[in-house]
Amino acid sequence: MEKLFIIKIGGNIIDSAEALGMFLADFAKAGGKKMLVHGGGKIASRIGEKLGVVSEYVNGRRITDAQTIDLVTMVYGGLVNKQIVAKLQSLGCNAIGVTGADADILPAVKRPVKEIDYGFAGDIASSRLSTAAIRLFLENGLVPVVAPLTHDGRGQILNTNADTIASVLAVALSKDYEVRLIYCFEKKGVLRDIHREDSVIHDMDSRAYRELLSSGALAEGILPKLENAFDAIGQGVKEVLIGHAADILKNTGREVSGTLIKE
Amino acid sequence: MEKLFIIKIGGNIIDSAEALGMFLADFAKAGGKKMLVHGGGKIASRIGEKLGVVSEYVNGRRITDAQTIDLVTMVYGGLVNKQIVAKLQSLGCNAIGVTGADADILPAVKRPVKEIDYGFAGDIASSRLSTAAIRLFLENGLVPVVAPLTHDGRGQILNTNADTIASVLAVALSKDYEVRLIYCFEKKGVLRDIHREDSVIHDMDSRAYRELLSSGALAEGILPKLENAFDAIGQGVKEVLIGHAADILKNTGREVSGTLIKE
Repeated sequence: MEKLFIIKIGGNIIDSAEALGMFLADFAKAGGKKMLVHGGGKIASRIGEKLGVVSEYVNGRRITDAQTIDLVTMVYGGLVNKQIVAKLQSLGCNAIGVTGADADILPAVKRPVKEIDYGFAGDIASSRLSTAAIRLFLENGLVPVVAPLTHDGRGQILNTNADTIASVLAVALSKDYEVRLIYCFEKKGVLRDIHREDSVIHDMDSRAYRELLSSGALAEGILPKLENAFDAIGQGVKEVLIGHAADILKNTGREVSGTLIKE
Repeated sequence: MEKLFIIKIGGNIIDSAEALGMFLADFAKAGGKKMLVHGGGKIASRIGEKLGVVSEYVNGRRITDAQTIDLVTMVYGGLVNKQIVAKLQSLGCNAIGVTGADADILPAVKRPVKEIDYGFAGDIASSRLSTAAIRLFLENGLVPVVAPLTHDGRGQILNTNADTIASVLAVALSKDYEVRLIYCFEKKGVLRDIHREDSVIHDMDSRAYRELLSSGALAEGILPKLENAFDAIGQGVKEVLIGHAADILKNTGREVSGTLIKE
């Protein structure tokens, strides 16, 4: 099978024009089949403030009310996504920006209300997911750039976590490609010691992961990413790499910088 | 050659949730190959006001300054485009929303500054235009929904008139399809007498157009549309139809309601 790089960048890169520019220049150069999944960044909050949209947070998660879903549809699906696409085009990378509604790439259901009503938050309906459109793009030289939005198939756009989107797409595309899922991160990888940048764990398998978990050495912030990573690995994704955005050229090449996770 | 309907809707439909919903229901039902080009509507101005973006107008044309291009990228490329796509998906129409930057569909140049600096307004660079991506979508069951945005190939999104986009795409796609370009309009067609809704001119060729022009019978508002129409016809588009959005099912079928323009 052919290799496919699915690369996720988060708000910390989106929020810095310089970091984003440098990342996209490297991403455009990276060889082989590739796609990008991007998060939102603080710009939605900044624009939301001006518009008088104040989002409520519960347990660190934004509650997506009707105004907020319109806001993130504009900002993530419009401004951020199209600025990335235009920049990539200028770098000779034939990008195509999509949300999960476009070509029905990411069907989802509105998260059921239990203790908390998350509003217009979408849980991806993996059983209804088809990778036909993404494969069509990839096989025809197009580079998908996916905004963190899904849809419920009944006309409603939904807000969905970009890490999750990257992981779900990686799993689904593993049927057709040898997928390396790369989470770009503000550190050089998973650190053995959070205070030492040079303590990157270069390789991790599920046994090492369990040992690290029980030793309590891992920083709390990395746990959801690792959970996503091993979840993806358990469902057929060949490799997950957690590394710095500045190392993306290495991490799509032979030399690896960061934490490479395999079964 | 196979038929292709290129349908343009303007702000008057975008601005009415009811009119838009009815139009999209009909558009989804229309048979055969089709694509949609949409304008912006007043929502950009409404959101712009809240954001403190006040656009200047010269000769009825908006000057697209840096804030305005970000605004319309968000609103046209994000909010309006994705709401249309999500709604079409709910109606069983496999829509894919794009701007001219996506897949390099609409390369453009920033309008040269002469007496007036229109700012980030784009004139489509027809000589660099490739229809490969749009044909790829159409041949694979996807229905393109195009926002009125282009790009300069150097990373800048540009604002471009939707009527012009529809006409340029119609010309380019006429090499591969028998194109009917349909301009949806708030009237039932071109009226012989602006005060009489029942005075629709059903058929118009270039001779009839010249006669009507010299008689001074045509309303001023329709003149740019007719100019676009005959321009398209002169460059290989088979038919241009100017009709009411509510008649789109008829106008993509055998029975025609509106003004059908042929060479």
